Amino acid sequence: MSLQRTAADQSVRADLRRLRELGPLTHCITNLVAAGFTANVLLALGASPAMVLAAEEAADFAAAADGLLINVGTVTSDDVAAMTAAARSAQSAGTPWVLDPVAVGRLPYRTRLVDELLRYDPTVIRGNASEILSLAGGAGGGKGPDSTADSSQAISGARALARRTGGVVAVSGAVDYVTDGDQTLEVPGGHMLLTKVTGTGCALGAVMAAFLAATDTALSAAVSASAVFAAAGERAAELAQGPGGMATALLDSLYLL
Amino acid sequence: MSLQRTAADQSVRADLRRLRELGPLTHCITNLVAAGFTANVLLALGASPAMVLAAEEAADFAAAADGLLINVGTVTSDDVAAMTAAARSAQSAGTPWVLDPVAVGRLPYRTRLVDELLRYDPTVIRGNASEILSLAGGAGGGKGPDSTADSSQAISGARALARRTGGVVAVSGAVDYVTDGDQTLEVPGGHMLLTKVTGTGCALGAVMAAFLAATDTALSAAVSASAVFAAAGERAAELAQGPGGMATALLDSLYLL
Amino acid sequence: MSLQRTAADQSVRADLRRLRELGPLTHCITNLVAAGFTANVLLALGASPAMVLAAEEAADFAAAADGLLINVGTVTSDDVAAMTAAARSAQSAGTPWVLDPVAVGRLPYRTRLVDELLRYDPTVIRGNASEILSLAGGAGGGKGPDSTADSSQAISGARALARRTGGVVAVSGAVDYVTDGDQTLEVPGGHMLLTKVTGTGCALGAVMAAFLAATDTALSAAVSASAVFAAAGERAAELAQGPGGMATALLDSLYLL
Repeated sequence: MSLQRTAADQSVRADLRRLRELGPLTHCITNLVAAGFTANVLLALGASPAMVLAAEEAADFAAAADGLLINVGTVTSDDVAAMTAAARSAQSAGTPWVLDPVAVGRLPYRTRLVDELLRYDPTVIRGNASEILSLAGGAGGGKGPDSTADSSQAISGARALARRTGGVVAVSGAVDYVTDGDQTLEVPGGHMLLTKVTGTGCALGAVMAAFLAATDTALSAAVSASAVFAAAGERAAELAQGPGGMATALLDSLYLL
Repeated sequence: MSLQRTAADQSVRADLRRLRELGPLTHCITNLVAAGFTANVLLALGASPAMVLAAEEAADFAAAADGLLINVGTVTSDDVAAMTAAARSAQSAGTPWVLDPVAVGRLPYRTRLVDELLRYDPTVIRGNASEILSLAGGAGGGKGPDSTADSSQAISGARALARRTGGVVAVSGAVDYVTDGDQTLEVPGGHMLLTKVTGTGCALGAVMAAFLAATDTALSAAVSASAVFAAAGERAAELAQGPGGMATALLDSLYLL
Repeated sequence: MSLQRTAADQSVRADLRRLRELGPLTHCITNLVAAGFTANVLLALGASPAMVLAAEEAADFAAAADGLLINVGTVTSDDVAAMTAAARSAQSAGTPWVLDPVAVGRLPYRTRLVDELLRYDPTVIRGNASEILSLAGGAGGGKGPDSTADSSQAISGARALARRTGGVVAVSGAVDYVTDGDQTLEVPGGHMLLTKVTGTGCALGAVMAAFLAATDTALSAAVSASAVFAAAGERAAELAQGPGGMATALLDSLYLL
């Protein structure tokens, strides 16, 4: 196992500067719990969020967007057509895209959907340890949307998954791990209070989709997104009394970074 | 009418401690206005929220969850199948569940849905005075989702409804009343500013669903949830300038209780 | 071009006082990103929000409401029936209503829907410059939901659209312009930080729907809504460090105005 420290802060800063110059149009098909917070995170960071959810529109929009996020958190049968159309369109148009397989392995319906979506070559797969372990063929088995495993336990599963899919895999947790199957980078510093704010993981997936337009490699995009999120989270935690203040301060910190 | 003061704070504290130890997986099928805030309230309190909305998944998930909330606030025809399947599954699996009949009696479509859901024996029914009066066979008739009656006016209706359904009924208002048909307890202290934050009543229903896993009786669950919410609300109101700060401070207070 | 300054603050204040006395029931069929924030904005201001989304309920509710907002931001095929039924019902019942044609002209599906909705005579059309230009027959062509034009560039388009539809047209931007085709009023002062909080434009549309119940003309409703929003935004921006604090302070400021 060749675990490396993250690249110097210098490159994260350059990526963030580039993201702000571009203001990437980031198409999000995400769950209804996290939708508002995700849009606010992208706006605070300097990206341009757009939630286009109709099956009749999702393919067109995904083809024109700078990045796409598909998050299956509260998927319904209506969303399936939109998600599938958007993923297929992103693949053929060359739009980089992030798959967030919330609670995969836990429920057959979404597990089948995620299997289908994997056929459209997600650029990045972002999940917690249970989700990544489940996709890698392990037991996984989180409790609802929360992981029952530590992120470090999913490193080798993440590598195997990255090699199998040809994409980058990011495991979120107290420490985030990002791998393209060869290199594996760690991003420390995810503050505990982030786990008490709903949708932070979902929003991180959207931030990765935004960074994909601003970096040379998908690995850099996922690492810079994680590093920016962790830095904003630490700064926010110094100001917050609890999860209410944390959500507010996280948005302010992302804006002020 | 035998109105009693709520049980000593001691038991509320013990219930909250137990909830935090358990971190109950709380399945919420709720309206899209309150979904994010509800998840944040549950996380702040120490529960584990999960919104699983597809008809294809809701029954499985409800059977495995520690508690279930069904809130019909923004129900669409797609939700009906998921709600019905989840309620039926909760009943047969023994998952305790809370029904929040938003604006029942006001619109025929949801009124029929609520009638159907009542067949699956909700453990707790939580509503405002207009909603409880409507279910109890009275006029009810709130103005949209807001009550036009004072919570105290619905006490006898709540008792009759509890006796008829065999469940606990909670009427929310400036003072909350909770009854199992025999005992009726009152929980004072709901701060006015709580009515200026959207989804606080909906979130309280979810908190009741979480407490059902941590208490011996449904009556205790509903009372402890109301008491915790009222205490956090009072604390938050001391810090808040208005409803924006109130929402933030409420989450912080629930976390710090 | 006869551009006039907005009416004296006096009439805005009188309109706001009237709105608070009435507490208008404001029916919102809006996008899932902005739904929670929109409800909080209406509550903070003193209106009574209600999101009723089912096609089976929307027409009944729109007929009884004091005002209606239809926002097509995240429209899906299920919403189309509800939106169309609500608009038709509002027209025939005399409920004043606001159309927010998010990203119209950018995607054929919603463009056709907006064309259909225009047949039901919206009292106010509120959009950004790209959206209004697109409806007025110009190029429009925003980048996703964001405008690529300055609001002042859409003034003559807005006038033409108002004359063609017989409704009031409001163009939002750094300066807001409101016109009934004859008179055109400007409302300065939209703070830049408002563009970093998701759903502020959408919420402004809902505020216009609430004001329609409290003013003599639709022009006054749109102007008072814009002026109140701009004033609250400026006040909030003095208190906020970034977009997180801005959202909180905006709600507090709307409440305290």
